[in-house]
Amino acid sequence: MADNDQTDDLEPGYEQGRDDRDDRDDNPYELDQKAVARIIHAVDNDDREALLAEMEPLHAADIADLLEQVNAFDRRRLLELYGKEFDGDILSELDESIREEVISILHPEVLADAVRDLDSDDVVDLVEDLEDHQQEAILEVLEDSDRVAVQQSLTYPEYSAGRLMQREVVMAPEHWNVGEAIDFLRNQDDLPEQFYHVTLVDPRLRPVGNVTLGKLMASRREVLLSSIVEETFHVIPVTQDEEDVAYAFNQYHLISAPVVDADERLVGVITIDDAMVVLDEEHEEDILRLAGVSDESSLSDKVIDTTKRRFPWLAVNLVTAILASLVIAMFEETIAQFVALAVLMPIVASMGGNAGTQSLTVAVRAIATKDLTGANVWRVIRRECLVGLVNGVIFAVVMGIVGVIWFGGPELGYVIAAAMVINLVVAGLAGTVIPVVLDRMGIDPALASGAFVTTVTDVVGFFAFLGLAAMVLL
Amino acid sequence: MADNDQTDDLEPGYEQGRDDRDDRDDNPYELDQKAVARIIHAVDNDDREALLAEMEPLHAADIADLLEQVNAFDRRRLLELYGKEFDGDILSELDESIREEVISILHPEVLADAVRDLDSDDVVDLVEDLEDHQQEAILEVLEDSDRVAVQQSLTYPEYSAGRLMQREVVMAPEHWNVGEAIDFLRNQDDLPEQFYHVTLVDPRLRPVGNVTLGKLMASRREVLLSSIVEETFHVIPVTQDEEDVAYAFNQYHLISAPVVDADERLVGVITIDDAMVVLDEEHEEDILRLAGVSDESSLSDKVIDTTKRRFPWLAVNLVTAILASLVIAMFEETIAQFVALAVLMPIVASMGGNAGTQSLTVAVRAIATKDLTGANVWRVIRRECLVGLVNGVIFAVVMGIVGVIWFGGPELGYVIAAAMVINLVVAGLAGTVIPVVLDRMGIDPALASGAFVTTVTDVVGFFAFLGLAAMVLL
Repeated sequence: MADNDQTDDLEPGYEQGRDDRDDRDDNPYELDQKAVARIIHAVDNDDREALLAEMEPLHAADIADLLEQVNAFDRRRLLELYGKEFDGDILSELDESIREEVISILHPEVLADAVRDLDSDDVVDLVEDLEDHQQEAILEVLEDSDRVAVQQSLTYPEYSAGRLMQREVVMAPEHWNVGEAIDFLRNQDDLPEQFYHVTLVDPRLRPVGNVTLGKLMASRREVLLSSIVEETFHVIPVTQDEEDVAYAFNQYHLISAPVVDADERLVGVITIDDAMVVLDEEHEEDILRLAGVSDESSLSDKVIDTTKRRFPWLAVNLVTAILASLVIAMFEETIAQFVALAVLMPIVASMGGNAGTQSLTVAVRAIATKDLTGANVWRVIRRECLVGLVNGVIFAVVMGIVGVIWFGGPELGYVIAAAMVINLVVAGLAGTVIPVVLDRMGIDPALASGAFVTTVTDVVGFFAFLGLAAMVLL
Repeated sequence: MADNDQTDDLEPGYEQGRDDRDDRDDNPYELDQKAVARIIHAVDNDDREALLAEMEPLHAADIADLLEQVNAFDRRRLLELYGKEFDGDILSELDESIREEVISILHPEVLADAVRDLDSDDVVDLVEDLEDHQQEAILEVLEDSDRVAVQQSLTYPEYSAGRLMQREVVMAPEHWNVGEAIDFLRNQDDLPEQFYHVTLVDPRLRPVGNVTLGKLMASRREVLLSSIVEETFHVIPVTQDEEDVAYAFNQYHLISAPVVDADERLVGVITIDDAMVVLDEEHEEDILRLAGVSDESSLSDKVIDTTKRRFPWLAVNLVTAILASLVIAMFEETIAQFVALAVLMPIVASMGGNAGTQSLTVAVRAIATKDLTGANVWRVIRRECLVGLVNGVIFAVVMGIVGVIWFGGPELGYVIAAAMVINLVVAGLAGTVIPVVLDRMGIDPALASGAFVTTVTDVVGFFAFLGLAAMVLL
């Protein structure tokens, strides 16, 4: 550690890649494809030494990425060759979709060693999604005290603060001074790996404030801990949804926060790195749900799983598309007389669908960040409708002119222009009102809004365009 | 701080809302609408004391949310009544869209006080997006040393690690032991507000390792710092894109990381809370870009700004919709003979558009998380096409049957079934290949993929359906 050469050893993913990274300066943390090729080569040749040499500098998170990116055949051979070098952290970092597969490949002894290395909150994260027999296999190999801790955590609801927290808390009585706290810490044998605060508690173990280690270091021994607590102090109920926990960390720039039970007693602590993982997952969920992909875990999913996950939303879309077709069917006679209508009608529907998606995405995000509330919901709805109106008028003029040039006579121009304005205003309205209403009903607006909004814009778009055409042209 | 009552004062947003939160247990951190009403009431009555009493327990981030959610008229009156209580942190938390407005409302002295309270990295974040005259006004009120620091930070590229880092670093020579480090820290007058590591440096100021404060606390005085450095140590180049910085923090669970200049000398430190903000912003950007909303900052934007921001994507969509219409126009005669085609054709296009959006969203996310790489791109493309094929066949059967029942004869059923399979396979292919190619070309796939993919699925959908119909039915 003490000379500069060793620096390179400490950040090998970065340093090592430097030689052959000319063309990927914009992707500094992407797995080095040449290193991946060398690893697969070592596996092909059953060359354990070469494999270990290649894997040694990689962070557990990178090894997990590697395992996700190679195919199932290479994955099995790699794990068998890698053998007992397998680290528990790799399991934690692995995507759920292949975690079960990897666990079933690992030799029971390797698995036991790997799991015993993990902190209890990581074990909880690991086992909560496993099938029962795998869960039991892992719990069995834990030491008694760890197993009890994990089982206790599993009694808290899924996606709650209780599942997220670590149970090891560094606390001090509220009346202590800096000197007492420092002496206490220096005499502890089993401080957590990572901690950033000393949490002050009252005699009934209720947390009353946080003192940062930095402040503790910088203060004189006789200073009271209660006089140097952090200004921002947030206590998290153990049953709080992890999404709200992540929001609190992001909103109030928390580094760690005490978790309390129903009696407000300290039962654990959540740190910002866990909150960051949740924030990342929640975003991922939102972005995929908005696209009609629910619960998709990763690129490693099998074709059949992916198909099953994509199917429901496509089925919903088929129903709504048929609904829109029924609207068109109402005007079959009009279309038979003016085929130009069939040519132009998808334009109105498509513009409405796009404008609606814009409004609904902004609304869904604003709901998630708690920026769209009772205080401004009417203002936002009015704004979205006005935006729809202004853009509607602009595109109405454009399409009116296109209609006249393309199909002669001005009537068709009027019709498509009017339908465009109507549909873009409706898009702004539906794109805001639908997610807000779904949220009030307790339904995740990211999951369901898209289907509703595009149904509305399709139906309104076809109906307005064909209905106006029937009135004007016939 | 020493008795339990005061706990409540420390987390008032949470405690205060408890009485009237029966119906919002699922929104623990949403601004309390009744408190907002009381604040507006105080502003209406010019009652400064009541206003201060209501605002006092609020965190700066919540005050910023409040200012964003009330209308411009109330915002001005609130700020004028609030006067010199205005805290610099509120400015940092404010959305860019109303930051300039708030700065222009604040009395120059209030603004000066507010800005002087901020850390230099927060001032950088504040001024980098301001117009020149507002930027100068803020730089002017800073103390000389702070102004130099801010100006130096502004010389780094926008969205780079250099803009994100704080310059105050706690470092120690690599040969020190624990005792020397602790004595040094305890004798420092101006340690940063928040720090989590002591960074070890070699004689040329190059960082060689991080020691956590917890480890420092827990180790005996004679232990060498170099023997208790953290296992994971990442050094960030000062010019690295902040998106990559956020990725590294998330991937390697970093808490803080040293930032180095081109000579690999330590110039600053980035902490996880800054990385979390960037991660959040990047996600927001991706989710909005996927929906065709670029650079939208917030709900507080004015109608005209929002319209301008939504317009370009709608204009692109108009062009692509017209392109699809031209495909339909090629088959005008066929449609004139079989109006049922006009009724059914949007179904094929719509299913393709949805399936394509599913694939592209998964691909865009996987590119952002560096999970879709050269090692697995062909496997992923094959998988997406297969998923499209399987879902295509299922929906082909369904629509074939619907076609037969709805319009009699089996030919129309065959046609729509075949077109469905073709379009869903193409959707899977286009939804994966297009974002990958855009990414390789250095274009953000989140921004542009949607337009390309839906154009492909519209054009292919209409062409396959109407073309097959023309062949089979005529």
